Amino acid sequence: MTTQQLVEQIRKKQSFLCIGLDTDLEKIPPHLLSGEDPLFAFNKAIIDATHHLCVAYKPNTAFYEAYGIKGWQALEKTINYLNEHHPEIFTIADAKRGDIGNTSTRYAKAFFEELGFDSVTIAPYMGKDSVEPFLDFDNKHTILLALTSNEGAYDFQTNMVDGMELYKKVLKTSLTYKNSQNLMYVVGATKASFLEDIRAIIPDSFLLVPGVGAQGGSLKEVCHYGMNKQIGLLVNSSRGIIYASNGQDFAKEAAKKAEELQQQMKEELKSLS
Amino acid sequence: MTTQQLVEQIRKKQSFLCIGLDTDLEKIPPHLLSGEDPLFAFNKAIIDATHHLCVAYKPNTAFYEAYGIKGWQALEKTINYLNEHHPEIFTIADAKRGDIGNTSTRYAKAFFEELGFDSVTIAPYMGKDSVEPFLDFDNKHTILLALTSNEGAYDFQTNMVDGMELYKKVLKTSLTYKNSQNLMYVVGATKASFLEDIRAIIPDSFLLVPGVGAQGGSLKEVCHYGMNKQIGLLVNSSRGIIYASNGQDFAKEAAKKAEELQQQMKEELKSLS
Repeated sequence: MTTQQLVEQIRKKQSFLCIGLDTDLEKIPPHLLSGEDPLFAFNKAIIDATHHLCVAYKPNTAFYEAYGIKGWQALEKTINYLNEHHPEIFTIADAKRGDIGNTSTRYAKAFFEELGFDSVTIAPYMGKDSVEPFLDFDNKHTILLALTSNEGAYDFQTNMVDGMELYKKVLKTSLTYKNSQNLMYVVGATKASFLEDIRAIIPDSFLLVPGVGAQGGSLKEVCHYGMNKQIGLLVNSSRGIIYASNGQDFAKEAAKKAEELQQQMKEELKSLS
Repeated sequence: MTTQQLVEQIRKKQSFLCIGLDTDLEKIPPHLLSGEDPLFAFNKAIIDATHHLCVAYKPNTAFYEAYGIKGWQALEKTINYLNEHHPEIFTIADAKRGDIGNTSTRYAKAFFEELGFDSVTIAPYMGKDSVEPFLDFDNKHTILLALTSNEGAYDFQTNMVDGMELYKKVLKTSLTYKNSQNLMYVVGATKASFLEDIRAIIPDSFLLVPGVGAQGGSLKEVCHYGMNKQIGLLVNSSRGIIYASNGQDFAKEAAKKAEELQQQMKEELKSLS
């Protein structure tokens, strides 16, 4: 999917919501557990109930790998279902991968070709030759960790290097990478005020913003500091939506939570028009 | 496996060799490709031919994920084969994972419990709460990326923060993490002289050293700067061993290459006694 197509979807749906499919057998409704593939059954029900309210889904690979082959199969079924029934949806493999050159190419093939995701999240620590192999794929997007939403972000990401915080150095350096136009960035919503500085470095890039909802970030602040003329935001919510209920009504309740966010996003989008 | 058991194996085998199972269908002998599971068939043959010469195997997950479910199955068969037939071998999932707290716990379960590896490699960018969930497992080892062997290592890892290079800050900070005794570190052999400074910070920890062989690092230098009284080194070679030949004799040729390194290691170990 091209960035332009993503922007069109956002305008059409009046939503820049990404739903995180952090699917956990200990948290999904118990009545699903007796089925053949509870992970996929849950994801399918959530997708069926919410796809008109969001523009992206983001399965976090950790939740699938934790179940071995069965988990990997559920992940594959989920992305296949999305690509077949909802090709208008932007798909994100939240995998936080990264390795030396020839190995990163393998990860890129795994997520872009073998599984068929539109994008994948990547860790920056190993630098240029760990990131560039991902940027080599046309109309695929590499979402680089810049400033994450967790407490440990302050261990290294906000350390000062060359007169700026490390995450800013990551942003600036990444712009020098080949095919850097294929980059998006992870910026945690719990640090919305940092978005002003970030936009000064990368005014045009899309940002994937986790941390709204369960982690306490404010949508209004994120939009105030982070939105650009092409919107430039994908705001993710995982637990706050998908675990709204663990009864028979779980998908319906998830849709209600998604709609609440979508309605707030619609308001924020008015400020652009 | 405990660190003490690993040290005993090194003394017994007179080897601190780790063999990287970066198994690639485009590089393995063509006669294996007609079989049901060429990835596992290759790994099994390499393991059968070399297990007496090394103390560890390190499959890099990228090479398996690139083949989807089939790749994941081959990875599972490989670790099961090692745990069943060679429980004395130290196993490393070279996965370079890392995510926020509850998600890192999932990755830890995936590699330590579901697959049954002794250790996993982890990226430090997200800090404390992305690493500590891995350290929570008894007799399991978390191998943190410090200084990698690739060109991109100079993008961020050698940037100065608080008067020291970032990778040193990573080493020092990691010592403050809960259960830091379960940490080992990745330090590239292409930068062997850096090992002197590294040993000043982490005198007792085990180091996983890639980059000997195909990437050009020198075993002698690594030992000179990096060995401690408990040896403290696992030196990895992947391509230089496993792709020594792509004929019918591939396993035998791999064993020859492994033995060359093991013999050099035996010499280096004499300096300790």
